[in-house]
Amino acid sequence: MVLFVVGLGLGDEDDITVRGLKAVQRSEVIFLEAYTSVLGTPKERLETVFGKSIVIADRNMVESEAERIYMPAKETDVCFLVVGDPLCATTHTDIIIRAKAEGIRVEVVHNTSVMGAVASCGLQLYSFGYTVSIPLFEGEWRPDSFYPKIAYNKAGGMHTLCLLDIKMKEPDYEEMMRGRVRYLPPRFMTVNVAIGQLLAVEAVRGEGVLSRETSAVGLARLGQSTQMIVSGTLGELLEVDFGKPLHSLVICGEQHPCEVELLDMFHVRKGGWSRYVRPDDNTSSSSDDGDEDDGVDGNGPPAHADVTGEGLKQ
Amino acid sequence: MVLFVVGLGLGDEDDITVRGLKAVQRSEVIFLEAYTSVLGTPKERLETVFGKSIVIADRNMVESEAERIYMPAKETDVCFLVVGDPLCATTHTDIIIRAKAEGIRVEVVHNTSVMGAVASCGLQLYSFGYTVSIPLFEGEWRPDSFYPKIAYNKAGGMHTLCLLDIKMKEPDYEEMMRGRVRYLPPRFMTVNVAIGQLLAVEAVRGEGVLSRETSAVGLARLGQSTQMIVSGTLGELLEVDFGKPLHSLVICGEQHPCEVELLDMFHVRKGGWSRYVRPDDNTSSSSDDGDEDDGVDGNGPPAHADVTGEGLKQ
Repeated sequence: MVLFVVGLGLGDEDDITVRGLKAVQRSEVIFLEAYTSVLGTPKERLETVFGKSIVIADRNMVESEAERIYMPAKETDVCFLVVGDPLCATTHTDIIIRAKAEGIRVEVVHNTSVMGAVASCGLQLYSFGYTVSIPLFEGEWRPDSFYPKIAYNKAGGMHTLCLLDIKMKEPDYEEMMRGRVRYLPPRFMTVNVAIGQLLAVEAVRGEGVLSRETSAVGLARLGQSTQMIVSGTLGELLEVDFGKPLHSLVICGEQHPCEVELLDMFHVRKGGWSRYVRPDDNTSSSSDDGDEDDGVDGNGPPAHADVTGEGLKQ
Repeated sequence: MVLFVVGLGLGDEDDITVRGLKAVQRSEVIFLEAYTSVLGTPKERLETVFGKSIVIADRNMVESEAERIYMPAKETDVCFLVVGDPLCATTHTDIIIRAKAEGIRVEVVHNTSVMGAVASCGLQLYSFGYTVSIPLFEGEWRPDSFYPKIAYNKAGGMHTLCLLDIKMKEPDYEEMMRGRVRYLPPRFMTVNVAIGQLLAVEAVRGEGVLSRETSAVGLARLGQSTQMIVSGTLGELLEVDFGKPLHSLVICGEQHPCEVELLDMFHVRKGGWSRYVRPDDNTSSSSDDGDEDDGVDGNGPPAHADVTGEGLKQ
């Protein structure tokens, strides 16, 4: 009996590997981790394609009742599906360690993650330093531990990938005080909010690490059919509507001429994402191609790509 | 017509994504890039599984005759298969740019790469800095541009992934002077050779960045069924036989307690890879399980894992 921890990649049901699909097919129990990321396709679509029912593993289950996920693997094959790669985020190593401590055999099936697919923007993965997480500020709670890391990366010429906060199934404490278990609606940090927070931290710390002139790249729905990549200064990107989640942001370090050439394809003042979205024709880039079914509620992005899984689209 | 640039992942034919497999199935012409990495399975096996013939794209074709790869995509769907992820290495962006300049539509199908799968060793991807390449020294040619990058990463507490040199289809100049086109046999840098070179550079530069006491992790055949991960000091790892290619090496930065706990599972003095190889039993770890067919010639590794695609095996 095996606990398969299977990366789904970033897009839809076609981004699973054949190895992952075989693990799903032989498993009796299938969980989908659904609070550290957002899959580009609804659970029901996965169920139809895989021909299996899937149990959503929400934050509470993964953090407080993980044994519900791994203990069944003593009796039968179990799949724990994770968006991206199972080991790129630190969240899932705990479940693996605990399962092993129970004598359960664990197999990890790798896949692409945002930390690999970010290379789609033209910056070289070799030259990335620390990856940082930007938490949503809440009132007086304005943590800025990412700032010295961005500073160190930048001083060394390295790029910084900023992962933007996701709030899934946060308890609604007001309702809970009335004795009702309620959760707040999901919230996803946008590129715009992230930039606002970064500049606010700079204003407080004043070490000259960031400004409105800092070169950066905003990325939305990376690896999905509506992927959007825009490069520009932080000031310029602040004005761009990146559409639905998930978003992430890269603060650029020194750029090799090859990187400049590639990044230029996505530049906001040169057409940016509109050139990116429609590489092969000159028609309007703001038309909607009917790809509504991406499993995420919210306002539509300004434009859609018409094919999936694209990387370096110009 | 589309040029699909498809990542194969790191293991065997099962590591392609469903999206990648669909691209292969609709393509009339399929190339396999075969000089920047080594797939864990022979080309013939891919051909059998995919039901398609595959043309090996060697160094000469990719670097000097790339139009042979992308120009057919004006007439028909073409697949260019790449081990790992197509964008993680910089080698393949050139072909994408040139294809786009010809008006060819390009779709990138992501997959896992060594830069993601390295998280299998227990070190967090967030805390990796610059990735460096260690070239095989040749006589007086002893480049050391990786040294200041390792130093900078280390001073900032970051880990360094060292990609080790591969020499595929290097011209045999002696034979060529006799008018014969001949190539040298492929050479792959081992963890041991890499450590020797790193310590040799330290001896020359003397900045105290590296020593025999430096913590590190040696990785071999990452993502393949015979994956091997051993942590220890550089001095200790120098004595370990990592077996067949490909090898890579991580120089550890500061370690979070969670990282220490995970890395400890792979420690050379605590059983190291032997515990890693056989997580579930206490039998000998040096038996060969008959998995001979990994597409790479050379001496067998000291031990084989008995399942494929494993990440955090203890």
